[in-house]
Amino acid sequence: MIHVGIVGGTGYTGVELLRLLLPHPEVEVTVITSRAEAGQRVDEHFPNLRGHCDLCYTTPDPALLDQLDVVFFATPHGVAMDRAPELLAKGVRVIDLGADFRLSDTEVFAQWYGMAHRAPAALAEACYGLPEYYRAQVSEARLVANPGCYPTAVILGFAPLLATGLLNEELLIADCKSGVSGAGRSAKVGLLLPEAADSVSAYGVSGHRHRPEIEAVLSAISGTELEMQFTPHLMPMIRGIHATLYGRLRRPMRDTALQELYARRYAGEPFVDVMPFGSHPATRSVRGANVCRIALHQPRPGQVVILSVIDNLVKGAAGQAVQNMNRMFSLPEDLGLAHVALLP
Amino acid sequence: MIHVGIVGGTGYTGVELLRLLLPHPEVEVTVITSRAEAGQRVDEHFPNLRGHCDLCYTTPDPALLDQLDVVFFATPHGVAMDRAPELLAKGVRVIDLGADFRLSDTEVFAQWYGMAHRAPAALAEACYGLPEYYRAQVSEARLVANPGCYPTAVILGFAPLLATGLLNEELLIADCKSGVSGAGRSAKVGLLLPEAADSVSAYGVSGHRHRPEIEAVLSAISGTELEMQFTPHLMPMIRGIHATLYGRLRRPMRDTALQELYARRYAGEPFVDVMPFGSHPATRSVRGANVCRIALHQPRPGQVVILSVIDNLVKGAAGQAVQNMNRMFSLPEDLGLAHVALLP
Amino acid sequence: MIHVGIVGGTGYTGVELLRLLLPHPEVEVTVITSRAEAGQRVDEHFPNLRGHCDLCYTTPDPALLDQLDVVFFATPHGVAMDRAPELLAKGVRVIDLGADFRLSDTEVFAQWYGMAHRAPAALAEACYGLPEYYRAQVSEARLVANPGCYPTAVILGFAPLLATGLLNEELLIADCKSGVSGAGRSAKVGLLLPEAADSVSAYGVSGHRHRPEIEAVLSAISGTELEMQFTPHLMPMIRGIHATLYGRLRRPMRDTALQELYARRYAGEPFVDVMPFGSHPATRSVRGANVCRIALHQPRPGQVVILSVIDNLVKGAAGQAVQNMNRMFSLPEDLGLAHVALLP
Amino acid sequence: MIHVGIVGGTGYTGVELLRLLLPHPEVEVTVITSRAEAGQRVDEHFPNLRGHCDLCYTTPDPALLDQLDVVFFATPHGVAMDRAPELLAKGVRVIDLGADFRLSDTEVFAQWYGMAHRAPAALAEACYGLPEYYRAQVSEARLVANPGCYPTAVILGFAPLLATGLLNEELLIADCKSGVSGAGRSAKVGLLLPEAADSVSAYGVSGHRHRPEIEAVLSAISGTELEMQFTPHLMPMIRGIHATLYGRLRRPMRDTALQELYARRYAGEPFVDVMPFGSHPATRSVRGANVCRIALHQPRPGQVVILSVIDNLVKGAAGQAVQNMNRMFSLPEDLGLAHVALLP
Repeated sequence: MIHVGIVGGTGYTGVELLRLLLPHPEVEVTVITSRAEAGQRVDEHFPNLRGHCDLCYTTPDPALLDQLDVVFFATPHGVAMDRAPELLAKGVRVIDLGADFRLSDTEVFAQWYGMAHRAPAALAEACYGLPEYYRAQVSEARLVANPGCYPTAVILGFAPLLATGLLNEELLIADCKSGVSGAGRSAKVGLLLPEAADSVSAYGVSGHRHRPEIEAVLSAISGTELEMQFTPHLMPMIRGIHATLYGRLRRPMRDTALQELYARRYAGEPFVDVMPFGSHPATRSVRGANVCRIALHQPRPGQVVILSVIDNLVKGAAGQAVQNMNRMFSLPEDLGLAHVALLP
Repeated sequence: MIHVGIVGGTGYTGVELLRLLLPHPEVEVTVITSRAEAGQRVDEHFPNLRGHCDLCYTTPDPALLDQLDVVFFATPHGVAMDRAPELLAKGVRVIDLGADFRLSDTEVFAQWYGMAHRAPAALAEACYGLPEYYRAQVSEARLVANPGCYPTAVILGFAPLLATGLLNEELLIADCKSGVSGAGRSAKVGLLLPEAADSVSAYGVSGHRHRPEIEAVLSAISGTELEMQFTPHLMPMIRGIHATLYGRLRRPMRDTALQELYARRYAGEPFVDVMPFGSHPATRSVRGANVCRIALHQPRPGQVVILSVIDNLVKGAAGQAVQNMNRMFSLPEDLGLAHVALLP
Repeated sequence: MIHVGIVGGTGYTGVELLRLLLPHPEVEVTVITSRAEAGQRVDEHFPNLRGHCDLCYTTPDPALLDQLDVVFFATPHGVAMDRAPELLAKGVRVIDLGADFRLSDTEVFAQWYGMAHRAPAALAEACYGLPEYYRAQVSEARLVANPGCYPTAVILGFAPLLATGLLNEELLIADCKSGVSGAGRSAKVGLLLPEAADSVSAYGVSGHRHRPEIEAVLSAISGTELEMQFTPHLMPMIRGIHATLYGRLRRPMRDTALQELYARRYAGEPFVDVMPFGSHPATRSVRGANVCRIALHQPRPGQVVILSVIDNLVKGAAGQAVQNMNRMFSLPEDLGLAHVALLP
Repeated sequence: MIHVGIVGGTGYTGVELLRLLLPHPEVEVTVITSRAEAGQRVDEHFPNLRGHCDLCYTTPDPALLDQLDVVFFATPHGVAMDRAPELLAKGVRVIDLGADFRLSDTEVFAQWYGMAHRAPAALAEACYGLPEYYRAQVSEARLVANPGCYPTAVILGFAPLLATGLLNEELLIADCKSGVSGAGRSAKVGLLLPEAADSVSAYGVSGHRHRPEIEAVLSAISGTELEMQFTPHLMPMIRGIHATLYGRLRRPMRDTALQELYARRYAGEPFVDVMPFGSHPATRSVRGANVCRIALHQPRPGQVVILSVIDNLVKGAAGQAVQNMNRMFSLPEDLGLAHVALLP
């Protein structure tokens, strides 16, 4: 039995971790922290957990966390970097669902997150937790940086072509659409239902924190320092990311060859589904499930369009974190993650 | 291993049955029928099932169905009554998610469903599949009539008070709100997103098929022939029923006594959650889960308001059907039904 | 030309007043205040106004407001009562869209709004701005209390029957459903799209501030001190209120007589639409329009169900306020209010 | 007074034409046709029109239509081409909201619409009704082809840059997001609320009928035969199109120069709003209004991102049609079109 703690359990990634971890056959969630809600029952905060969870929130007391096997941080950036080193020193493994350990370059981190990195040694050993590309490293890791939601969808979609050098790296565009839960559970006027429902808008077009993350990982995978136009949009829905990815082939390529490339790359992957060529995956086909569905199109010769959908809270956050945990503790990678997506 | 067939697998109750039955540890789904889609892969129709289901739709061939342990009918009324008798004769148990066996009075059936009942013998042995009130009968049943979605929410909410004779049976009102999936997966203009989104309206105020069902069951439970005002409303959401139930106490009663009555009645019930007195359950707290959450209010002495929420496709249809199946086959009643609701 | 000011112009009633007043042929909006946004262009705050409005927010400076013909208060309770008396003294008329002047009984006000009333003299002269019932008074008023959104829908629906003494006043129930904009433009977690979308819940079942308002007005109209069960629900939509009203007739009454009662009472009313008996009005049929649509049902003899729908921001707030203004300034009551509802 | 007829008045563009034309001060709508609903009152079909419209649907009788000044076709493709020539011959002007006269090349028409063009002579005189680019021609036209919804948003967004030859025509991408009303009021399973709500998906990625229309018009405007990647997506909302347009500058250009180019091009245009550089227009800022809002971004030197939003039923259909009518009859172009968008 793995003894698990969650630091920062009042947001959407927190409750989603609980949805996945409470029924997990090899896990016991023993600590969940929230300074603001300390003492309150978790299922008063999230009534969907009634009957599944008897825990109360506690303050993030080191004495409690030190006894655990693994701690998930579902916190804003800046928290995990301050707590992870001591946990690692005590032999506790750490999975950070925030951004503290995603960017290996501390200067880039400082530029995009507005603070100096305060744990460069931990950062140096952190592993980027995208098992489809860093499985071996995750298996050995003490500290995993769980990828951002947009980066998960974009990297899984673009990587097979970029890894083989078939795309012109100067013409990459990721037009991404996200449900509102991706913005977190914070009381902002712009996220109110009367503001965000029945409307679509872009945001952060001139720059978004997930762009350097995507660029760094895809640069590493492709072996080329690449840049990408990344345009996030807010959708009037709760969950889901739809990444529409545009690239230009360096050389002509048949549709069947494109399809074969992806089918082979992801053969055996439990959580990547390469759909038939020309499909149109809907985000609802992954609602609540830890899966990324990908479909390929080539509307005109050389113009590739890749559609990649995930549930931002599952494969884009909590589900991927559990997938990483399974791997870190030598469990079957899909243990506790076999949910069928909720449709309709 | 229970061998299961689903007749009529292209609607919402069909896909929801598959979501619950495919991972069920004691079930093998071997047949799923659809005349219109025969030959097509089920996961082409419902892409959320990709990776979970290799079945193709077949025509409802008796030779296939006769081999099974149990057949679920997820069909419009009039289908199950024609097929159930021969299946029962072959030793196959039947759970009908449609309306054919819910009303024991064939005249009432004819009046509300516009057709004579063609299987009165089967009807006579059918059991109303609300385990919280007919558990013993379900355990012995060969033929179960799975309750309607509205009736499930209304009966579970009203029954404890009505069973004890504490309410004035002449002043019962059920004001019910349902998500659009309750209307089924049929191409009707009124259910299009641009028609049904961002709007609320009542329907069937002068009469709805679920009213006689509710009245018959609650009359039986209360031992009094009662009538009820039942007003269904269409909500701009996918899943969920919220029943707001109004009753008048015959005699004064303290809030704590009311609460105690419900807490005792449902103590030990795996799928009924009596919330603290004065709570306001939201339908999202049961999204995807086989549970009915109930909360009690007494705004003024003698005026009782009961709030009862379910997911219409789970506790209101497919989940309750699986709960019935578990009981019919002497399995733990909650086997394969322990999903945490999807929130947000 | 009427010179208009709006105090508190950053909320939903504020922007809705601007939508209606900016194109109004007899109005010039000259002042709109917001302490927090003073100096900012209004159309930066509300981009739908780009091209229609050159105003900037100002602080609520008495020197500016004193010059106006009428001031609308679109503020939380407690603001208008402090400002109205001096404006009235300067000859400026006041329309309060908040709650300060709706309850004539200061004790009831104190009980429900948690503060003593600080302008009892102004309150004594205030007129309840429901023109369908207080038209003559509105015409003469210097100070109008614009009704609450729920009260508008409930009173217009119940009043014709209650005014004639045909209903049992002890058995009144108003089950109301509101879009989220009714809760205002304030950053609360419970109103975020991921919380409020795709879900329905009741709130304030044990007591809501609109209940005493409804009870007081309907008591006055019926000539009987009555009580009502009022149950508000939050709907996953932006605009709209659907009131489902339940009453019991004292004596049998034919459907045609019921219909005739309402048709006569509202004949000639520009903003009340009595639909054919047995209709089911949808809130979308009034989206953006200053109209209340009402339909009557009598599912069983003596059991009356009245359906009443409005746009909470129009007939339930800003539209009704403009209707009152028109009347106060002897303009045609429907001037600037002839919008066709936006459907779909 | 202009006497107006609408052929095909049961769909969304039909009801939207009525919303705009019924209060139009220079218009009298005298005929509205529907074979299926002939004899039925229009306001029974669309209850938002109650109180605004006494018309009944009629069959499309030539004797009625011949008397009119102008006929709007709100019909599927193939209808207007059969009826327009005789109307033109009688001196009746025609505005087709369908696709019959948008593509001047009959071969391209046949390829994308699956039928031969049956009125090539009328087609030859048809004017593409985008007043911002064809104002003089519209003023003289007898037959106007009202642009498609996507083309309106894309062309208005791209044209200023393409007209000046500043963009590389080989690298144009239009990633477009549309509300479900864009698919029309037809009973298709995929458009049901439980299918289309809370989900996003692309469609027609390999080819969509609006692509040749966009390419033809932009080729004409730019003077170069260009191709474009056009990707439409279905959004879980009722109205609105958000076009996210990607282009590469041939030569470096400062942000201010970009902005100046658009500001100048659209100066004086009543229905195009160039927002401050770097803005993020939301579709809700144009809901119900006849306006296109455009914002420019240059995230990296040479990479231009243009955001263009419209209401698909107004500037993308009925509003633009009325704008064309105003111009054809020498009325002020914005007469009857000054609605403020409905927000929230």
